[in-house]
Amino acid sequence: MSISIPKGTRDFSPDEMAKRNYIFDTVKKVFKLYGYQPIETPAMENLSTLTGKYGEEGDKLLFKVLNSGNFLQNVPVELLSGDKVLPLTNKISEKGLRYDLTVPFARYVVQHRNDIILPFKRYQIQPVWRADRPQKGRYREFFQCDVDVIGSESLLNEAELLQIIDLVFSKLGVEVTIKLNNRKILGGIAEIMGQSDRLTDITVAIDKIEKVGLDVVKEELISKNINDEQIKILEPILSLSGSNEDKLNRMEEILSESKTGLRGIAEIRTILNYVESLNISSTVELDLSLARGLNYYTGAIIEVKAQNIDMGSICGGGRYDNLTGIFGLKNLSGVGISFGADRIYDVLSAKDLFPQSSLEATRVLFVNMGAKEEIYCLQALRAIREEGISAEIYPEQTKLKKQLEYADKKNVPFVVIAGEEEMAVEKFLLKNMNNKSQKALPLRQLLDELKQY
Amino acid sequence: MSISIPKGTRDFSPDEMAKRNYIFDTVKKVFKLYGYQPIETPAMENLSTLTGKYGEEGDKLLFKVLNSGNFLQNVPVELLSGDKVLPLTNKISEKGLRYDLTVPFARYVVQHRNDIILPFKRYQIQPVWRADRPQKGRYREFFQCDVDVIGSESLLNEAELLQIIDLVFSKLGVEVTIKLNNRKILGGIAEIMGQSDRLTDITVAIDKIEKVGLDVVKEELISKNINDEQIKILEPILSLSGSNEDKLNRMEEILSESKTGLRGIAEIRTILNYVESLNISSTVELDLSLARGLNYYTGAIIEVKAQNIDMGSICGGGRYDNLTGIFGLKNLSGVGISFGADRIYDVLSAKDLFPQSSLEATRVLFVNMGAKEEIYCLQALRAIREEGISAEIYPEQTKLKKQLEYADKKNVPFVVIAGEEEMAVEKFLLKNMNNKSQKALPLRQLLDELKQY
Repeated sequence: MSISIPKGTRDFSPDEMAKRNYIFDTVKKVFKLYGYQPIETPAMENLSTLTGKYGEEGDKLLFKVLNSGNFLQNVPVELLSGDKVLPLTNKISEKGLRYDLTVPFARYVVQHRNDIILPFKRYQIQPVWRADRPQKGRYREFFQCDVDVIGSESLLNEAELLQIIDLVFSKLGVEVTIKLNNRKILGGIAEIMGQSDRLTDITVAIDKIEKVGLDVVKEELISKNINDEQIKILEPILSLSGSNEDKLNRMEEILSESKTGLRGIAEIRTILNYVESLNISSTVELDLSLARGLNYYTGAIIEVKAQNIDMGSICGGGRYDNLTGIFGLKNLSGVGISFGADRIYDVLSAKDLFPQSSLEATRVLFVNMGAKEEIYCLQALRAIREEGISAEIYPEQTKLKKQLEYADKKNVPFVVIAGEEEMAVEKFLLKNMNNKSQKALPLRQLLDELKQY
Repeated sequence: MSISIPKGTRDFSPDEMAKRNYIFDTVKKVFKLYGYQPIETPAMENLSTLTGKYGEEGDKLLFKVLNSGNFLQNVPVELLSGDKVLPLTNKISEKGLRYDLTVPFARYVVQHRNDIILPFKRYQIQPVWRADRPQKGRYREFFQCDVDVIGSESLLNEAELLQIIDLVFSKLGVEVTIKLNNRKILGGIAEIMGQSDRLTDITVAIDKIEKVGLDVVKEELISKNINDEQIKILEPILSLSGSNEDKLNRMEEILSESKTGLRGIAEIRTILNYVESLNISSTVELDLSLARGLNYYTGAIIEVKAQNIDMGSICGGGRYDNLTGIFGLKNLSGVGISFGADRIYDVLSAKDLFPQSSLEATRVLFVNMGAKEEIYCLQALRAIREEGISAEIYPEQTKLKKQLEYADKKNVPFVVIAGEEEMAVEKFLLKNMNNKSQKALPLRQLLDELKQY
């Protein structure tokens, strides 16, 4: 029998779980410090909630759940001809697996609008599913970790999210660069190019600049019927250099004719002022090529990269003014970011940044020497666990070698051996598995040693 | 537009999440104290892994995921006639949502058998999905919370699980009765009735005794062709009374001819001896009618009920000798229990046992009085958060009344107001939202007050 799991999905072993929980626990702790609260939504949503929200390509990537019972009951015969896949799908499947956390969040806000306290500061850490072709680093089931505040237009929220990013990565020991842009600046650029209605084409193209370089971006723009003259306006903007202040001053001149553009610049200035007074230690860098391809950002655009490692963005987001509009609730502005758990995991692995303590499952294993010794050890185990120290006794009375191997494989740092000799003097032989030192101690001192570790 | 989620599924609000996390964090902490480690498995499993494992009824309750792309491509035309639902399903769907955590755990153990350290102590807290008819307390998506040790036959494991039950519910403040039985005793009873091959019918019937009473159980047994004489053997067993020791002594006589039955009694005695020496404070009660309907238990059967509340079992489990046999790995004995998160939630709600601190999202809200005050407050917020205290500032400069309402609705116990007056003397006005008292404090004392709470 071949035993496997669906392609693109993963089992998480105890070791992987410990590392993942270290990341999730760190972000959750920071979110809570800032007053964000968790919500969770069901894995399955109605397909009417999901379809049409991710573009045509996205719709194809939705995992659809077959209706229960006799799902063919009310299907018209003509749909069963074998080439009516899409209409048939709609008849036999009403539910799909969540594709991201954004649309369910929007649905949640609208559905519970009478119970929600605005501004609503929520975080959500749950798996999402996409029927994408699996490849290195791309899975069909993966976790998203979103934090948003909805119902407030204040730029203090943006600043707070930058603080959160700064604190999370400083706790994780990862030096990061936070890139900042503003959709209104991009809008201003399109405006002075005389191409306001082509904003999407322009931002999609310039979003690629880091990956493919200026020349390819130019080609793409030309293929979209943006002419040379217009590209000439764009070019100096894309190759701006200097400090954030230098760039903003230059842009202020370039965009002097665009109200929208100037508003974008003012917003960035406000956020950067907060950054300064908040002692954010990460580098915050204005990057006008940052567009994140997403159509729904309306203000700040944020992206985070780990320094000194070749890896895509590990966190990103921005402000959106119409998230809940798709479900009929207008004029609710929000801003949020999403932490990429899998990439953060890869960065911490590559840089060996998981602390030893986060990987420890059991601090001390008691060797099982027999029935009498067991009772003696169980009393000690009770006292140790009451101190909050994780401890176990090997459940079988078997060879010492096998029991020590178990401790070794499970990375248990201490082993206690207590046989007749130790019992006679009411002591426990404590063995340090790292340096192989050992000493016989009474219970009180055993506790102290284990606590100190 | 009607906004909803699939029937039988739930959104969890911040308040509900706080309560659920209080339960999950408590059990996780206890599991870890005993050296159990978490694993996670994918939401989708291959249908070949799931089908046939839960009986015919269970197969019908599996949520099946439609194959991606043109799922009709290789479907023979004759399956599309409209009445070939089952064979068609098998052609168009290869994956299903996990129905419980037991089968995925068995699959995990077999698939990763070369990496697992035996005995393998794992816990797993994940949602499962069943296409059951939704009703009060029964959902189509719900969380299971399983803890098992596999690869050890020692009864110390059973005792440890009883310790875990005892500690979890004592931490949660719930007084419980732990009911204990042993499948071998049930086997012995069937044996002396001369009905060893009818063990399932007998246990299914007696499992219902608490719900339906002795007479209905008798009727059911008669309908299964168990005769009066055989029922006479069973009757005194079902109405045994007295202490655990009394019951065991009486059963020892009744089962004196059954080796299996006597082994069951010996096992229970061993476990009860551990219970005594471990100072387990919950009532542990031998209950011979306990069978838990499940066919795969081979030794201990465990069930937990909250005292003084009318509610089904809130935790249960037992020993199984052949969990991984379904996937071709024989002779791996395990024992485990599962905590019923939803019912525990209901017990804690009914008894008002959620501690206030577990529901607190933010300890202090700073009122937003304007741009200058904001900067003054942000410095204080930084210091407060560095102490690990969750704090926020209202992001908008709006009416005081609205800001205080926000604090009130979010159950924030403290509010800080700092205007020009306070700034002039470098103080903060701390308002206790419960007793409405307030005092002006310098930052250092403000921190102390907030920490003390």
